[in-house]
Amino acid sequence: MPTEQDCIFCKIVQGQIPSVKVYEDNIVMAFMDIAPISKGHTLVIPKDHYEKLADCPDNILAAMSSVAARLANAVSQATSADGYNVLCNNGRAAGQLVDHVHFHIIPRKTGDGVFNRWPAFKYKLGVAEKLAEKICEKL
Amino acid sequence: MPTEQDCIFCKIVQGQIPSVKVYEDNIVMAFMDIAPISKGHTLVIPKDHYEKLADCPDNILAAMSSVAARLANAVSQATSADGYNVLCNNGRAAGQLVDHVHFHIIPRKTGDGVFNRWPAFKYKLGVAEKLAEKICEKL
Repeated sequence: MPTEQDCIFCKIVQGQIPSVKVYEDNIVMAFMDIAPISKGHTLVIPKDHYEKLADCPDNILAAMSSVAARLANAVSQATSADGYNVLCNNGRAAGQLVDHVHFHIIPRKTGDGVFNRWPAFKYKLGVAEKLAEKICEKL
Repeated sequence: MPTEQDCIFCKIVQGQIPSVKVYEDNIVMAFMDIAPISKGHTLVIPKDHYEKLADCPDNILAAMSSVAARLANAVSQATSADGYNVLCNNGRAAGQLVDHVHFHIIPRKTGDGVFNRWPAFKYKLGVAEKLAEKICEKL
């Protein structure tokens, strides 16, 4: 199993660092976040070490998303949540603190203010189309 | 193809509402968010109508996450981003505005302040373990 020295999530997978586990199979593991932003905040990780979502092969993505979806339901029921966010931060600029890809499952209550910022704007005419062209070139 | 009357994403899939498309296959479609929170903000949706992530069957989850990962790389390159968030809001309480499941791909630059709130706390002794038990009962 590929691991990365000094990766705390690899150490959790190997049992070298304790965790409060809620799920484990051959590919994926899930455990309680020790610094939750809402009660029940859970992390889903691949057991193998991949840094970012875009580094993961399709079988890992399929396993992670399947577990994340099932777990989102279970976490929501267990915490009587009104909704949930599934969030994957990639890179320091995006808030990733541990360089082992992970989905945050964050149960939410109406009006809890956990995420209260959504700074939407509008593109000027033609800007979205030009961006789309550049994105398609890189796909 | 299952659709929902008055769902704007179903109408986008059917071409009844225009969109700036960046990707399409038999299962998944991706297009530019018209109210982006960062330049290049893109949405990935299943063509079939499912309300929440936990409603999607595994083949849909696999297809969505595979496209989201590839697209995250392309969007990041096209916008010279330093990182990216992949976010799925489920339910009004979690910020879901369109009841057709979607991944937001949000390219990020260092210090952009797009998401600058992460209100982490610590559980009191034994609380995480009790929550984990309740979650496992619901899995």
